[in-house]
Formats: sequence, C-alpha cells, structure tokens
Amino acid sequence: MRGMVAEIIAVGSEMLTPYRVDTNSLALTSELNKLGVAVAFKTILGDDLGQLTEAARIALGRADIVLFSGGLGPTEDDLTREAVAAVLGVSMQRDTSIVDGLRDRFRKRGIELRDNNMKQADVIDGAEVLPNANGTAPGQWIDTEFEGKRRILVLLPGPPKELTALYTDQVERRLRGVVPQVHIATASLRMAVVPESEVDARTAPIYQEYSDVQTTILSTQGEIQLHFLASKGTEAEAEARVAEVQGRCAAEMEPFVFSAENETPEQVVLWLLGERGQTLAVAESCTGGLLAQRITAVPGSSKSFLGGAVVYSNALKTAFADVPPAMLEEHGAVSEPVARALAEGIRARCGADLGVGITGIAGPDGGTETKPVGLVYLGIADGAETRVLRLNLGGDRERIRWFASQHALMELRKRLL
Amino acid sequence: MRGMVAEIIAVGSEMLTPYRVDTNSLALTSELNKLGVAVAFKTILGDDLGQLTEAARIALGRADIVLFSGGLGPTEDDLTREAVAAVLGVSMQRDTSIVDGLRDRFRKRGIELRDNNMKQADVIDGAEVLPNANGTAPGQWIDTEFEGKRRILVLLPGPPKELTALYTDQVERRLRGVVPQVHIATASLRMAVVPESEVDARTAPIYQEYSDVQTTILSTQGEIQLHFLASKGTEAEAEARVAEVQGRCAAEMEPFVFSAENETPEQVVLWLLGERGQTLAVAESCTGGLLAQRITAVPGSSKSFLGGAVVYSNALKTAFADVPPAMLEEHGAVSEPVARALAEGIRARCGADLGVGITGIAGPDGGTETKPVGLVYLGIADGAETRVLRLNLGGDRERIRWFASQHALMELRKRLL
Repeated sequence: MRGMVAEIIAVGSEMLTPYRVDTNSLALTSELNKLGVAVAFKTILGDDLGQLTEAARIALGRADIVLFSGGLGPTEDDLTREAVAAVLGVSMQRDTSIVDGLRDRFRKRGIELRDNNMKQADVIDGAEVLPNANGTAPGQWIDTEFEGKRRILVLLPGPPKELTALYTDQVERRLRGVVPQVHIATASLRMAVVPESEVDARTAPIYQEYSDVQTTILSTQGEIQLHFLASKGTEAEAEARVAEVQGRCAAEMEPFVFSAENETPEQVVLWLLGERGQTLAVAESCTGGLLAQRITAVPGSSKSFLGGAVVYSNALKTAFADVPPAMLEEHGAVSEPVARALAEGIRARCGADLGVGITGIAGPDGGTETKPVGLVYLGIADGAETRVLRLNLGGDRERIRWFASQHALMELRKRLL
Repeated sequence: MRGMVAEIIAVGSEMLTPYRVDTNSLALTSELNKLGVAVAFKTILGDDLGQLTEAARIALGRADIVLFSGGLGPTEDDLTREAVAAVLGVSMQRDTSIVDGLRDRFRKRGIELRDNNMKQADVIDGAEVLPNANGTAPGQWIDTEFEGKRRILVLLPGPPKELTALYTDQVERRLRGVVPQVHIATASLRMAVVPESEVDARTAPIYQEYSDVQTTILSTQGEIQLHFLASKGTEAEAEARVAEVQGRCAAEMEPFVFSAENETPEQVVLWLLGERGQTLAVAESCTGGLLAQRITAVPGSSKSFLGGAVVYSNALKTAFADVPPAMLEEHGAVSEPVARALAEGIRARCGADLGVGITGIAGPDGGTETKPVGLVYLGIADGAETRVLRLNLGGDRERIRWFASQHALMELRKRLL
C-alpha cells in the first residue's frame, strides 16, 4: 500500500529572489515523515492569484495533503485564502470572533486596526480556523473532496516561528486522525574527517541490505551524516530495524563516528570533558577564534571551557602562550614546534587540563612551496604528553579554517575517550 | 510588454528530505535576473519518471524558459533526460563523442567505465550538448515549440560547481541570443543594529516612488539589506535609476548603513583600519571568540588584526587583560567597569591602537533579575577615550552572541569614521 503523499507550496515573491530559500519546508518535512507521510513535491511561487490558484489545482491533483506556507497576511499580495477558495469553488466568510481578536491585539499595542487587516479574518467555507498564538494571521484546515478524492489542505503563516508553533499546536493531531497509523523510527550517525565517498563505499553494502529502511547520506561542513528511517506495524519493530543498521554502519566506520545521538562534535567534546571533570583552553592562530566560538556556542560550555587566546601576531604567541621568540624565528610560526608550544603554553597559562594549539596557513595568500596554503599544525597537550598533527587541508580559506577546527574537536574526542 | 519568465525544476529525492535545501536556484535566479528574466516558479521533486514528465509538462505550459538541475547522472534514478524526451515526444541518441570522452576520463583515473555511465551520453533529439568541464554529465539545450509557443529547455547537472560553471560557460550567451535585450542595473544597501520594521517604514515612502525599480528588503542575521534592480533601454539609464533610489535611502538611514558596496561589517572595519594604519585586539567573554572569528574569516585580516583573548573564566580576564580581581569581585564579570577594563587591558597587552572588550550573559542560564539574559556590556578603547555601551539583546544564545558581535563591529566602524 502506498502511503499518503504531501505537497508543500511556499507562497511569496521574496522566495523567488536570489536571496531567500524556503526553509519552512524542511521543518514540515521532518514532521510529516514522522507520521509516515512523504513529501513528493515542493512548489515555490509568487503572489499572483491566477498562478497560485493553478498551482493549488495541480497540487490537489497529485498529493493527498497540501500545505501552504505564507500569503495569509494583511496586504493585497496575500492571496492564499483567495486562491484556495477559488480552486475549491467555495466562498469565504468574515469571522467576527477573529475580527474581535485582531481588534484586541491591536488595541493592546496601541496600533490602529486598518481595513486591510480584516482580511485575515476571512475563513474559507468548510475550513476550521487554526488559532495562531504568535501572530495575527490564523491558519486554516480543510478536509474535503477534490475530483472524487479525499484531500487535506492546510494553510499556514509564513514566519517560521508562527508556522512551526501552529503545526505543533494545531496541525499534528489533526493529521494523526487522517493518516493511516504507522510506526516510524529514525536514527542517525554523524562522522567527521572522512570523505563522503569512503563512507558511501563502506556503508552502502550494509544499508542496501535493509530495503525497508530509508537511508540518506549527507555531507555538510566537514561532516558526513547517515540518516535512517523505518516504518513498521509496531514501534518496537521500527526501532529494532533502524538500530540494527545504525549499529552495523557504526561498527564499520568506528573511528570516524562521533555521535549516534545527533550531537555536534563540540557537544560531544564538552560532554566528555564534563564526564571527566576536565577543563580546556585553546590558542588559535589560523582559525582565529573559530574553535573557541564553536565550543562557547554550546550552552553551559563555561563549566569545562576556560577560554584562550587568538594569537594572530607572533608577538601574541609569545605574550599569551609563551612561545619563545627564538623558536618562531627558527621554525616560523607555522611549524610543528610552535603548535606544540602553543598547546603547552596555553594549557599552563590557563591552568587547564587540556591545551590545544593551532597554527597554519588558511590562505588565499601566504603560502610557499614548503609551506603551502592548507598546511595546519594541530597540537594537543594534556600534561603527560603533547601530540602534534600535521594536516594538509584542501579548499578555500573558509573550508581550511573549518576543517582545522573539526580536526581539533575530533582529536580532543579521541584523547578524552 | 511582459518579459520572459522562467521556471527552475530541481530534481532529486534528497531534495525532499528534511536536510537539504535547493540553493542552485539562487545562483540561477541571480543570473537570470541580470538578463531581465524573472523566475516565476520553482518546483522540487524526486526521481520518478511519471512525476517528472508531468512537472515538465506543467512548466512548459507556464514558463518560457525551463531549467532543470540534477537527474543527469549515471544511476537508474537519473531520469531528467528521459522525462524531457517524453514530454516533447522525441527520442534520444547515444552520442559517440560523449562516450569517447567518458572512456577517456575514466581511463585517466584508472576506473572502469560501467554500462550505466553510458546513459550520460544520451542526447535528446534536437538538443545541443553543453560540455561539462567539471563532471561526467554534459548539459543539454533545447530551443523548441511546445503547444504553439517557443520554449527553451536547459538541462543542468546538480552539483553546484558543475551547474554554475556550465551556466557561465555555455548557457548565458545562448540565453542572451533568445531573451529580448534589456539593460539591468543593481545596487544594494546594507544596514545593521536597526529593526527591519524601522527600515521599511522609513524607506518605503522613498522606494515606492520608483515604480520602475524593483526593491527587495531582507533581514538576515542582525542585518537589513535593501536590493534595487532596474531594467532600462540603456545601461546608463538603469544605473542612474538605482543609484538615485539607493542614494536617497542611504541618506535616510545614514547612521545604520555600513555598506553600499555589498561588503560585510567585518570587511568595512578591516578596510577602515587598513586605511588609517591602525590595529585591533579584542577580549571576548560571552561572544567566546565569535568576533575574532568573524574578523579573521576575511582574507588579509592579519594586517590589522593582532588577536586577543577569549576570557571565559574570571581568572583569564585577569591573566590576559589585567582586569583587577577586586573589580570582578565588586561589580561582577558582567558590568560596565569590567567591559572598560577588558577593552583597555587587551589594548595595552597587545599593543593595539584599538581594544574591544565584551562581557555579557548569553543564556539560556545565568541570568538574574538585575542582570538578565541578553545584558551585554561592550567597551571600546582607543587610548584617548574608552566608551562602554550597555545593550539589552533579545532572543536565544545564538542571537545574543551574534548581535553583540554585530554591535561591536558597528561601534568600531563609528569610531574609525
């Protein structure tokens, strides 16, 4: 039996500029998949009544569930309600309780309610109103027939916070009542410092044995993710299937896997530091604060992360991490001894259990034949031992810096395990 | 006269997961707009021949130019060629010169050419082959009639680097020969630390006078952008129109505008530092390296940026920026005197012309009644004077940190002007 399929229609001319991507559909897709509903189509179009009506007609022809995001506001350009009413051949009625709510809301803010705001109170015949706790435009839910088939239409506001809250509060349980009940389980593996092609070559023979598990491989920002999804008659069956394929893939890729719980590398490192009651300090040259920034982006990082120094100039390498000027002179700032001295120096200076030193050439300029762009030395000191990795990273400045921080986190994880 | 309109169809089941957005269409939209072509529709769908053929039919019914991205690879799932041939009712021929090229490419890499790779050499009847310098799948260009109307179909590979290079090398000049010639000029203004609603309220009365200029307002990461586009009979006319509306909007929003040249705030600050031959050092507590990271992400930043310290712990505020322990004791780490001391201390320690100190509560925990989450003190010292700003920032940890770094850059800009 084929499950229900959905189409997501994002409405708004700003979505057709070079500047904006539709991210609402990602959150909706994730939620729909949990109900066993696949998204088969996404359409993005502007604020044109004729085009919008026609797109709604096409969607109703090919999808069981059609979700609209945007076009519910108060301006002339907000036409989703009108288009849906037109394609269904029904009218709209102004809902006085919504009008009262709008009046109230505006009065509280001391703003005048203008006529155009009233259109947000127009309800399509046969629709249920979905109250919007975070904005003025309510959503609408329509369970109807179109050309002899049952169709669900959901009108949602465009602002992401309004849309996701409204989905959770109002739409999810309504969909559960409509969609044939299936049990979905998901799992993931996150890996780093390994090429996507290697992950695919090694794990495809495993996950392809699981034709009932949907596997997605993703490569993003120096990280490879495997996502598994199974849909079964019971939750236990679904959980068992994804756990099995996840476990086998994890064993295959062992040293590169940093999380099976959808955590970031920095979360994993902070968790390990916390577990062991250890502290960390970093001295960054070519990454210029990126590593510290990633770590401190995690709430509660101050428990294990003391801080460190951004030692862009040679003078600061000496001032903040006690790298001897003679060493900088002899070996150059980008060298094995300097990475070692940075790691040891910052560790001692900050009184941390672990110290990291990073020095390298992020480019685009500054490379030489012996020290090309992408050469990075990464030192990690724990008092007993200091190890220095020499990395040759490819790509542009952004990629080199990111991968250097990624390697630092993976090495810290290894050291802490 | 209505200009030509385009539809972009992104093909690939991975585009319908919760993990991936279609960014190819942004690059294509930007290029198409430069030719005076508006993108009216975007469709995203999976690797299903029936659905893909139907989507191509719908697109040919409503757009003059239909661009496909993806689905040109060697696997069974790559079906864009097949769908386009089906909708046009034509056949495909295997092109021997493409086969030879594939053979060559594979031999050079020492990989065996498998049968399925051959399908990349299938050329739709009536199509021109668009050589792909960066991958195995060539693009295709079809200039044809569909239901009595002239239609252009462009098949492009999905990987972004292949797609953009192929567009530039092969597609752009072909489109120029098809599209009625117009002259397009664009301009932009970038603003920060001002709400979008204020920018819109103040500039809308200006840009609405220019009905021949398309204005887009965007709010992204603590920044508001205005983008202007005019299409005219001559380049000079188009340039003059966008320059006029840009100039008037810039005058209206004067203190908040940091670039009319599409630069980032960090680029502007580094440019000003370079101009004046001055250097900068930063001491960051709540931003944890974010400010340093943003500045050092700019190539060449080492000329003006010396470095600094991430002083997460109180001990490091003293060790790296000489904040007196008694001051930390008396006023707390998040206080006006500590921000001042951090700015002055890091400036002196690093021997920089300008010093920045940031201390605050990024949350989600750590707030109190008198010092709530979002309270940030920002100090800037230049030797002659130290000024401290008290900020009350809203939102989550990420937003508070970002806006704190944004304010720091805007204050640095002001100080340098």
